[in-house]
Amino acid sequence: MKRNILPLVGLVVGIGLIIMAMSQNSTLINYFDGPSLVITFFGSFSAILISFPLNTLKKVPALLKKLMFTPDDDRAALLDNLTELAKKSRTQGILAIEEDIKELNNPVLIHGLEMVVDGTDVDTIEEILNVELNQTEDRHSIGQEVFLKWGEFAPAFGMIGTLIGLIAMLGDLQDPSLIGTGMATALLTTFYGSFLANMVFLPIAKNLEMQTANELKTNEMIIEGVLALQRGDNPRVMEQKLQSFLSNADQKEASKAKGNPVPATEEL
Amino acid sequence: MKRNILPLVGLVVGIGLIIMAMSQNSTLINYFDGPSLVITFFGSFSAILISFPLNTLKKVPALLKKLMFTPDDDRAALLDNLTELAKKSRTQGILAIEEDIKELNNPVLIHGLEMVVDGTDVDTIEEILNVELNQTEDRHSIGQEVFLKWGEFAPAFGMIGTLIGLIAMLGDLQDPSLIGTGMATALLTTFYGSFLANMVFLPIAKNLEMQTANELKTNEMIIEGVLALQRGDNPRVMEQKLQSFLSNADQKEASKAKGNPVPATEEL
Amino acid sequence: MKRNILPLVGLVVGIGLIIMAMSQNSTLINYFDGPSLVITFFGSFSAILISFPLNTLKKVPALLKKLMFTPDDDRAALLDNLTELAKKSRTQGILAIEEDIKELNNPVLIHGLEMVVDGTDVDTIEEILNVELNQTEDRHSIGQEVFLKWGEFAPAFGMIGTLIGLIAMLGDLQDPSLIGTGMATALLTTFYGSFLANMVFLPIAKNLEMQTANELKTNEMIIEGVLALQRGDNPRVMEQKLQSFLSNADQKEASKAKGNPVPATEEL
Amino acid sequence: MKRNILPLVGLVVGIGLIIMAMSQNSTLINYFDGPSLVITFFGSFSAILISFPLNTLKKVPALLKKLMFTPDDDRAALLDNLTELAKKSRTQGILAIEEDIKELNNPVLIHGLEMVVDGTDVDTIEEILNVELNQTEDRHSIGQEVFLKWGEFAPAFGMIGTLIGLIAMLGDLQDPSLIGTGMATALLTTFYGSFLANMVFLPIAKNLEMQTANELKTNEMIIEGVLALQRGDNPRVMEQKLQSFLSNADQKEASKAKGNPVPATEEL
Amino acid sequence: MKRNILPLVGLVVGIGLIIMAMSQNSTLINYFDGPSLVITFFGSFSAILISFPLNTLKKVPALLKKLMFTPDDDRAALLDNLTELAKKSRTQGILAIEEDIKELNNPVLIHGLEMVVDGTDVDTIEEILNVELNQTEDRHSIGQEVFLKWGEFAPAFGMIGTLIGLIAMLGDLQDPSLIGTGMATALLTTFYGSFLANMVFLPIAKNLEMQTANELKTNEMIIEGVLALQRGDNPRVMEQKLQSFLSNADQKEASKAKGNPVPATEEL
Repeated sequence: MKRNILPLVGLVVGIGLIIMAMSQNSTLINYFDGPSLVITFFGSFSAILISFPLNTLKKVPALLKKLMFTPDDDRAALLDNLTELAKKSRTQGILAIEEDIKELNNPVLIHGLEMVVDGTDVDTIEEILNVELNQTEDRHSIGQEVFLKWGEFAPAFGMIGTLIGLIAMLGDLQDPSLIGTGMATALLTTFYGSFLANMVFLPIAKNLEMQTANELKTNEMIIEGVLALQRGDNPRVMEQKLQSFLSNADQKEASKAKGNPVPATEEL
Repeated sequence: MKRNILPLVGLVVGIGLIIMAMSQNSTLINYFDGPSLVITFFGSFSAILISFPLNTLKKVPALLKKLMFTPDDDRAALLDNLTELAKKSRTQGILAIEEDIKELNNPVLIHGLEMVVDGTDVDTIEEILNVELNQTEDRHSIGQEVFLKWGEFAPAFGMIGTLIGLIAMLGDLQDPSLIGTGMATALLTTFYGSFLANMVFLPIAKNLEMQTANELKTNEMIIEGVLALQRGDNPRVMEQKLQSFLSNADQKEASKAKGNPVPATEEL
Repeated sequence: MKRNILPLVGLVVGIGLIIMAMSQNSTLINYFDGPSLVITFFGSFSAILISFPLNTLKKVPALLKKLMFTPDDDRAALLDNLTELAKKSRTQGILAIEEDIKELNNPVLIHGLEMVVDGTDVDTIEEILNVELNQTEDRHSIGQEVFLKWGEFAPAFGMIGTLIGLIAMLGDLQDPSLIGTGMATALLTTFYGSFLANMVFLPIAKNLEMQTANELKTNEMIIEGVLALQRGDNPRVMEQKLQSFLSNADQKEASKAKGNPVPATEEL
Repeated sequence: MKRNILPLVGLVVGIGLIIMAMSQNSTLINYFDGPSLVITFFGSFSAILISFPLNTLKKVPALLKKLMFTPDDDRAALLDNLTELAKKSRTQGILAIEEDIKELNNPVLIHGLEMVVDGTDVDTIEEILNVELNQTEDRHSIGQEVFLKWGEFAPAFGMIGTLIGLIAMLGDLQDPSLIGTGMATALLTTFYGSFLANMVFLPIAKNLEMQTANELKTNEMIIEGVLALQRGDNPRVMEQKLQSFLSNADQKEASKAKGNPVPATEEL
Repeated sequence: MKRNILPLVGLVVGIGLIIMAMSQNSTLINYFDGPSLVITFFGSFSAILISFPLNTLKKVPALLKKLMFTPDDDRAALLDNLTELAKKSRTQGILAIEEDIKELNNPVLIHGLEMVVDGTDVDTIEEILNVELNQTEDRHSIGQEVFLKWGEFAPAFGMIGTLIGLIAMLGDLQDPSLIGTGMATALLTTFYGSFLANMVFLPIAKNLEMQTANELKTNEMIIEGVLALQRGDNPRVMEQKLQSFLSNADQKEASKAKGNPVPATEEL
């Protein structure tokens, strides 16, 4: 796990720009209104409470931690690991890798290799790892859905807040000089809803989606490698197959380091 | 079936916040208008009457009950049940589990095991259970669709109501002092439509969608287990396969309880 | 074919509510404007003329008839029919059912059984019936698409009408007292477009979609049954398989009537 | 190829209705503004230039020709053709149909039959024809995408034009009597964008989509027929299979003409 | 790689038209406001920073280069290449093509042929090339997603900017003569957001999507050809199969050049 500060940078810069725009147009204090913030944030959150079961919502804090830390799914290192294990298993027998498993830290890889060492047959390993892959995807996609849905409800509750303000203002127009202030306050919830959705919830949902896709690709690579190991494939052929999972930049580095020719995936 | 109060909490908190916002902006009475509520709620409901057959709509009350009660699909307990049955069937023969079936309460599991005891062949069991799975999904998704559609029609009828009010007001502008009140009343239906959609119908649709997904996963696990039982798979292998259907927290608890190593699905 | 009055009830109630809302806000006559209705209805219809071939559009009147009459796809009765035929075919030979075919009225069932009696092989029957299933789905989905598209074009032409009115009004503001009336008239097309889409076209599209889904499920059940008959499956096994296509309520009734145990599809 | 005037009728009627609405609200000349039309039409077209490669855009004029001419994919005639060829090939050998190929004009059918006569094996024929089918679909869908995308960009550029007009007007409010005219001009681009999208681009996109679907179905029928011919299937069985591709009306006519019983696809 | 100026032409023409519209309505300077541009462009970019990992964003500049240069995926030339290689391999043995590989420049083709020469078995080649195909698609689609997402965030931040301006203006209406200018400035961010999305980000996203689709089709053709080579298929049959990947215009040219009959894919 290494610290990933990009999302934090994005959030700080984005909020900074918005505060700058506010202070340029008026004094900041005019943009803050407690009740408006409460109706937009907690109103949309109450719709989230209806939409998702408690088990799902409990996972949200853990997901937020994920935003700040990227898992070390260095696929180039993984390729090296798997190739080494394949060579060792070829020369010293499959049981020789038992020791190495303890030094790994990717749980899917560990589970797969344990099954290989246990002599589980190749179809069962494939089935179990694939079910785990699907379950991981399901669990992750639920996290994305919470933020995606919140990103839909927030502007909706912003609009509801604005309608409440507008109806009050229009129903009582005795002092026309207050129309402007009434409208301004009414629009605050629309502003909060739009801000929360586009600066916070929707980017988080996309971030989680990208992380899931990345993790799934790593796991697919692991499954491919574990199965090759179990079948006793030629380590060279396995390496060639797994290399396709690397991005180009990684492939080139890996190749340079070993003096291999650059593999034939296209530039970008 | 255990009581699930989260949706009720969400609804109460959400409505509470909206009432708070109303009373802060004006007196509550200004936000209630019988005819506006009727056109938004029953107008959109009449579009639902055209859209769905009577058989489908009859299921709506039962669906609402589902919102309040979560089925006990405790997959960890299910895993234990199935593992016990597999062990018993291994040692005492398949007929020995006939007694245990009576104590179960999941209808899909009961049906599957009955077929196993009856000696139905594995392909037929798989086919029948899969058709049931698809039928369950179809029936559930129809329930979601009703609320999803209602969540689309409600704001549309809110807008229709507002247009009716606006046209009346604009067509008769003799007393300009009434414009505000006219607009306020016209906007009420938009407010009701947006409220009904985002606080009630769309969250319910999402809730039902999540429940269906959860139930289908439980049923997939049951089918996997029943087929393993019928094929006489090794109980240990079966357990390993079915564990992938558990969430991580459950897996850890189950493992701790038995002293097994934590299985290799990733920490969320 | 039995009369299905629900869509009519929905339409009458919906239009009634809207008329009520109109007459409460103003006099009804203010909401009717021939040219506005023409531009919204026929304008969007002219876009439909460009979008769909004549063959497709010719089917629209027949589709509207379908809204009023539900086909008798009583799947419980169908299950009885197929089980009876299977038993008869088992005891008296496949040719014995030739007589019974004449009394049936579901054309897919008749076609399938005729092929069985003709001795067509099981793969050919499956292929032909599946192609027919897909063709039926294609034909039906085209009908839905016409109304779905019309439901998109109607509000668009409503907005076009409103823009035409607004541009005229704004371009000639010499008598400010006419602004209100101008705006009111301009908004009429938006109102008509929204009304046509949400009260008429979109609910019809959904209704046809639901009917297609239902019909397809019946036809899938028929295909399953005809193939079981051709293969000479055990009538009891066939009955068990086909029961999964029934909704729960139907299953229970069927079971009670015969004293069978309630099959294991979940409640709801 | 026969002339298909429906799209033209739709376009003429639609534009006629809009002109009628314009002239009823104001004088026609008020709705025409060269620069507004240029920004909406060519602005959105310039976005199309960025979006699609030149090769794709070159096909647009040919696509427009397609709107006016329907290909003669008379599937009933095609069924007759294929059945005749199957009978001839059965009695006189496959080479006997070489002569008949010259009289056909459907290029997919010709290519398929040529391969049959050349003795190409059935798998290769299937593969080649399926690749062609997919390529045809790809090429056609690109055409639809251009118009669909243009139908999205046109209203967007209409809104951009309106914003440009509004900003100019609001920034210079010295003569309030000009506000109306300014607004009217600003709204013209929104009107043009909505008109171009809903009267021209989106209906054309849908029309091309429907034509593609129809053509693909014809080609699927041809592939099915050519493969049956190559395998030497019974002409009667082939006819029965291919009949499923016909619409009901066609099936009935074909049946009447030959005295066959009406096949069992459902009445719409 | 040949220069592709179409996107540049589109951009220049589009911006030219918009500048023309601006200068016609007002003086250009009124449309430029630094802070408004900053909040729209960098605000939406900060949401992008949260949404995507750094690795993905680093690829964006390379993607922009792609817009200006089209890869030479001349599929007609590729067909010739592959056919020549197939003939040579047939007459002189597979090793004879080793020399020719050095003159090629498509990396997928080179990698595939190297594996053929190395004697890698056909299934492994297919698997490796297909994984590479999927990885290429994944990498490319991420590029499209960045611009698609930016095209969604830009108008959202435009609206956020406008709300900030409106709230400031409405909250301080002491000098009504400033309302117009305030509104005008507030609308600038909406204008910038709409402009950036529809003139820049969304067209780029579509362009990248089209390029990916094109490249994938070329790679599919290469895989088909390489596998045919490995299997030692008849060069004539291979040519026939690969021809289906060519567009019609290319097919005709290729056919004319060689005196072959025009293949039977449909005109357009």
